[in-house]
Amino acid sequence: MHIGLIRVRTLETVGAIDNHGPLIEGAFPGLRVECHCIKDQPYGINDDESEARATPKIIELGRELGNTVDAIIVSCAADPGVEALKKELHIPVIGAGRSAAGIARTLGKAIGVITITDDVPEVVRNNLGDHFLAWKKVKEVKTGLDLESEASYGNTLNAAEELVAEGSDTILLACTGFSTIAIAPKIAKAMGVPVIDPVLAAGSVTYFLMLNRKG
Amino acid sequence: MHIGLIRVRTLETVGAIDNHGPLIEGAFPGLRVECHCIKDQPYGINDDESEARATPKIIELGRELGNTVDAIIVSCAADPGVEALKKELHIPVIGAGRSAAGIARTLGKAIGVITITDDVPEVVRNNLGDHFLAWKKVKEVKTGLDLESEASYGNTLNAAEELVAEGSDTILLACTGFSTIAIAPKIAKAMGVPVIDPVLAAGSVTYFLMLNRKG
Repeated sequence: MHIGLIRVRTLETVGAIDNHGPLIEGAFPGLRVECHCIKDQPYGINDDESEARATPKIIELGRELGNTVDAIIVSCAADPGVEALKKELHIPVIGAGRSAAGIARTLGKAIGVITITDDVPEVVRNNLGDHFLAWKKVKEVKTGLDLESEASYGNTLNAAEELVAEGSDTILLACTGFSTIAIAPKIAKAMGVPVIDPVLAAGSVTYFLMLNRKG
Repeated sequence: MHIGLIRVRTLETVGAIDNHGPLIEGAFPGLRVECHCIKDQPYGINDDESEARATPKIIELGRELGNTVDAIIVSCAADPGVEALKKELHIPVIGAGRSAAGIARTLGKAIGVITITDDVPEVVRNNLGDHFLAWKKVKEVKTGLDLESEASYGNTLNAAEELVAEGSDTILLACTGFSTIAIAPKIAKAMGVPVIDPVLAAGSVTYFLMLNRKG
């Protein structure tokens, strides 16, 4: 199954653009992922303004990809453009936010959400419903890029510790920048609770669709 | 990852007991599934009475398995015993019902549910929330065993057709007997909508947990 994956942050090198592809391909055999990124947003999506600017670009990229792939993943926990593309295209369009929420609520009843923004993405909060417990923003982080610093690793782990101390039985990472740094298994190991990586969540749902086509 | 899977219907041959194991192993590399079934319930769970009889047996079997496996799947869309086992054991306990609902709501907004019982399992309905649209019981089917007849195949497909005609954008199969006959991809192909197989849904969530332990 051939997947088009949309990065919501402008990246300059092929290696950087493709980064989320191998994450999914390594975990879900049979998925082939082709990555693209939107233009002129080197800091990605971090607030309502940057989301509003990114959304039409994501929709346009989705339209272009729609003719050549079997499914589209929008690699952002806010699911920008996903509803619009679903209505327009005749292939599945998978958002990382909704996928992460769907998997989190099967695993836990008191989900703690870690963000880089000043609120929990609406699609995550709505889909967690009464399974949502609390959220924390990673300290000293303004954009997904900041997650790549050494300090952010510790700050993310601190946020997870606080959420578990407050009663979270599952952690949802509400930015695909957390997937780029592959921090989910590290937090899971440190805290002993399931940690939902949003890119792998989108991959998991897409893989399920692929199984649906077999047999 | 070594999974203990509990069948909620008494089966006589090793091949029949093990039937749901290869479904999961074939789809999710790295999961090894050991199947067990409860005693003295050859017709499985089909109503409140049979569910009440099965639940303590499932909990007992789960307790026994809890010491030797990494996770437990209860292979029934009503998730009998899952909450009790989760509280008691220190390993993940995955219910097919909650898993199917979690994946269905990531893929659709108007889920049609197909049952063999006179109502939608509570755990499925609750977890679908406002994503639930409608449900149909398969005609002339009283227990999961009846699904294995030739007529049931057509009756299940008819139920799916009615649900899609009523506006369902996704079909959830709310009995793991549908997994035994591997009907999900056939309905998906015929109707052009995602169809959620409950055993594969439980496998998918368990596989996600396994990925969480890597890295």
